[in-house]
Amino acid sequence: MPREITAFSNPLIKQVRDLRDKRHRRAAGQFLAEGLRILTEARDTGRLPRLLFFAAASAGHPLVRELVVTVEDSGGEAIQTTPDILSKLSGKDNPQAVVGVFDEFGGILADLDRGASGIWLVAERLRDPGNLGTILRTGDAVGAGGLILIGECVDPFSVEAVRASMGALFTVPVVRSEWAPFLDWLRAGPGQLVGLSLDTAHDYRSARYAAPTFLLTGNEAQGMPDEYAAACDLLVKIPMLGKADSLNAAVATAVMAYEVLGQQRQG
Amino acid sequence: MPREITAFSNPLIKQVRDLRDKRHRRAAGQFLAEGLRILTEARDTGRLPRLLFFAAASAGHPLVRELVVTVEDSGGEAIQTTPDILSKLSGKDNPQAVVGVFDEFGGILADLDRGASGIWLVAERLRDPGNLGTILRTGDAVGAGGLILIGECVDPFSVEAVRASMGALFTVPVVRSEWAPFLDWLRAGPGQLVGLSLDTAHDYRSARYAAPTFLLTGNEAQGMPDEYAAACDLLVKIPMLGKADSLNAAVATAVMAYEVLGQQRQG
Repeated sequence: MPREITAFSNPLIKQVRDLRDKRHRRAAGQFLAEGLRILTEARDTGRLPRLLFFAAASAGHPLVRELVVTVEDSGGEAIQTTPDILSKLSGKDNPQAVVGVFDEFGGILADLDRGASGIWLVAERLRDPGNLGTILRTGDAVGAGGLILIGECVDPFSVEAVRASMGALFTVPVVRSEWAPFLDWLRAGPGQLVGLSLDTAHDYRSARYAAPTFLLTGNEAQGMPDEYAAACDLLVKIPMLGKADSLNAAVATAVMAYEVLGQQRQG
Repeated sequence: MPREITAFSNPLIKQVRDLRDKRHRRAAGQFLAEGLRILTEARDTGRLPRLLFFAAASAGHPLVRELVVTVEDSGGEAIQTTPDILSKLSGKDNPQAVVGVFDEFGGILADLDRGASGIWLVAERLRDPGNLGTILRTGDAVGAGGLILIGECVDPFSVEAVRASMGALFTVPVVRSEWAPFLDWLRAGPGQLVGLSLDTAHDYRSARYAAPTFLLTGNEAQGMPDEYAAACDLLVKIPMLGKADSLNAAVATAVMAYEVLGQQRQG
């Protein structure tokens, strides 16, 4: 039977709420994910929350009941609570029906099977959690093998990134690496490194992308360092017909990824 | 000579800060835009702020000096202030060097020249200001004729939308309309209405897009109503290979828009 917490002063509520802060996430090795859709997706990939908070009003919802049973069967704890406390945990005025506390996870480059997909996403010094989550969501959609984060990127387990990923955090492998070990790993096997750049005349639609293609997106404000661009097998640009000189990083990644997917599906 | 405001208690500061709220924007008919890049872009399209706030520390920056002079010459007011007050105005910890107060603007369908571009963006019940701004930014990049907002959409003049647009709010015409008058206007001239849908087998890359193409994107959570889909000349879908069933709305719009642009440029 789920226990019930209705008091804001309960110390567990503060602990869980603190997971919205990176320092606390790192110390606890845990993160927050909200919403029936995302938590169901997580479960389908074999990841269950250690703690599952749900509103009393949603206790009868079949998906919530299913989650509660599965979490309890796995040794986790389900906790019935109030909409106000769910709001506090998620930081949103209209909270989702469920909030889960998950253990952080992650892999290393050596875990990745580059033959598993024709498209891999690589982002360096990505700063915006919404962009990171959106790139993961796109990665799921194009069937990317994974997302490789180079250098100081925003935390993929931040509440905003998890939210924007719409569950793709659980379906798309994420690996963090520095540039040099990434390049060593990449060059130890097949793979074309394609960089998005403003300093090339090569239109992204006229290039040809062989599997596996590794798509490198640079920092939102500065793009990628010259050294990274020089290491690419191919630099391409997306045409910009207006006044601005760049696209949103998640948008640019998606436009590229769908061009690669379209070509690879056509054979 | 710019006057100086260094007191938080100055009533003008509260008035300007209130423009972050939709109700106050509507009452004042004004909105906020921040950053040298965006304000310079605005000036280049002939739009100048009525009020220009800048940090004393940036007063020597050539672009700031230029803006101050242009704003004062046009009858606007430049106000030197502190980083703390700029933070308060923009709601950000690291404020931009300048914050401007602009008059709202907008057009009607009858103003649009559909022959001016091969691509037009249409969004219905768009809820997220970041998505709206990002769609404008993409619209600028593909040379879209404009963005037509159908029904209850988020305010394009919200601080988040203006910020995500990176200045494209000033370069891409935005028109608000209801569905019926939009359809009347559309059918009174040439134009193919293309809807993004999950309920079609028609791949977006195998369709052919004749100019002018009007790309219709539905609400983030629900997609578009059946009635809107039925009115489209063509429904297409973007392949989804993963677990999720949809892309971020701004990403989907960009993937479509770049396919249309690519085809139209190829002739």
